[in-house]
Amino acid sequence: MIDMPALNQLLDAVQFDANGLISAVAQDAHTGEILMLAWMNRAALSETLSSGQAVYYSRSRHTLWRKGESSGQQQRCLSMRLDCDRDAIVLQVEQTGVACHTGRRSCFSWAPDTSGQWVAVADVLIDPSTLYGQSS
Amino acid sequence: MIDMPALNQLLDAVQFDANGLISAVAQDAHTGEILMLAWMNRAALSETLSSGQAVYYSRSRHTLWRKGESSGQQQRCLSMRLDCDRDAIVLQVEQTGVACHTGRRSCFSWAPDTSGQWVAVADVLIDPSTLYGQSS
Repeated sequence: MIDMPALNQLLDAVQFDANGLISAVAQDAHTGEILMLAWMNRAALSETLSSGQAVYYSRSRHTLWRKGESSGQQQRCLSMRLDCDRDAIVLQVEQTGVACHTGRRSCFSWAPDTSGQWVAVADVLIDPSTLYGQSS
Repeated sequence: MIDMPALNQLLDAVQFDANGLISAVAQDAHTGEILMLAWMNRAALSETLSSGQAVYYSRSRHTLWRKGESSGQQQRCLSMRLDCDRDAIVLQVEQTGVACHTGRRSCFSWAPDTSGQWVAVADVLIDPSTLYGQSS
């Protein structure tokens, strides 16, 4: 556990942008696969550091986004790395189920082909209608 | 090689933000290590797709940033993945030397400790003064 003064010291060192946000990349802690890129404000980073569960900031809903709260597809944050500019972070996570709202393991699942199409290169593992059937 | 109509079709499908940018995460193609997070505009993504070398957009210098052009620390882009929102991309790269301007392999090299410090957890592999000694 981390105490409040130490937590605030960590947060104070982070360079949130003009909108109060940093980029956050979630990476599978075991396979290295990059699962998603999202955003965090100070409150999201604080809660992630203190709870050990990935919490982002939803720019569309203007609220904290506790990953998996409605879908069940949570991310346990095992470790964290800040970058040299202190404005981006990598979370090494244990992903329950899938990270992507399309039901794919990773959001980064489309590759370019020479005909000009972005082609899905990962299977849908969970029917997305079951992920968000009960809430938004 | 990709022809111009196909290239433009790929670029047209990408959701650049209000500033004409997407986030781009560079990942070591062989180890899975996340090396850096940067930005691309349409021209940077176009050149990356056609040349096979990672090209970003520098928000501070307002110009294309051909990674390694001045430092020699280039990134050969072996593959690419677009995300479900079409506004972020992962590049799987072969990194020459180091990705970080501090001389560390990855920009994501600072971990939080319980005393409130972000502690460097990766060694400086190249003296940074030698990386940019000749140009900016």
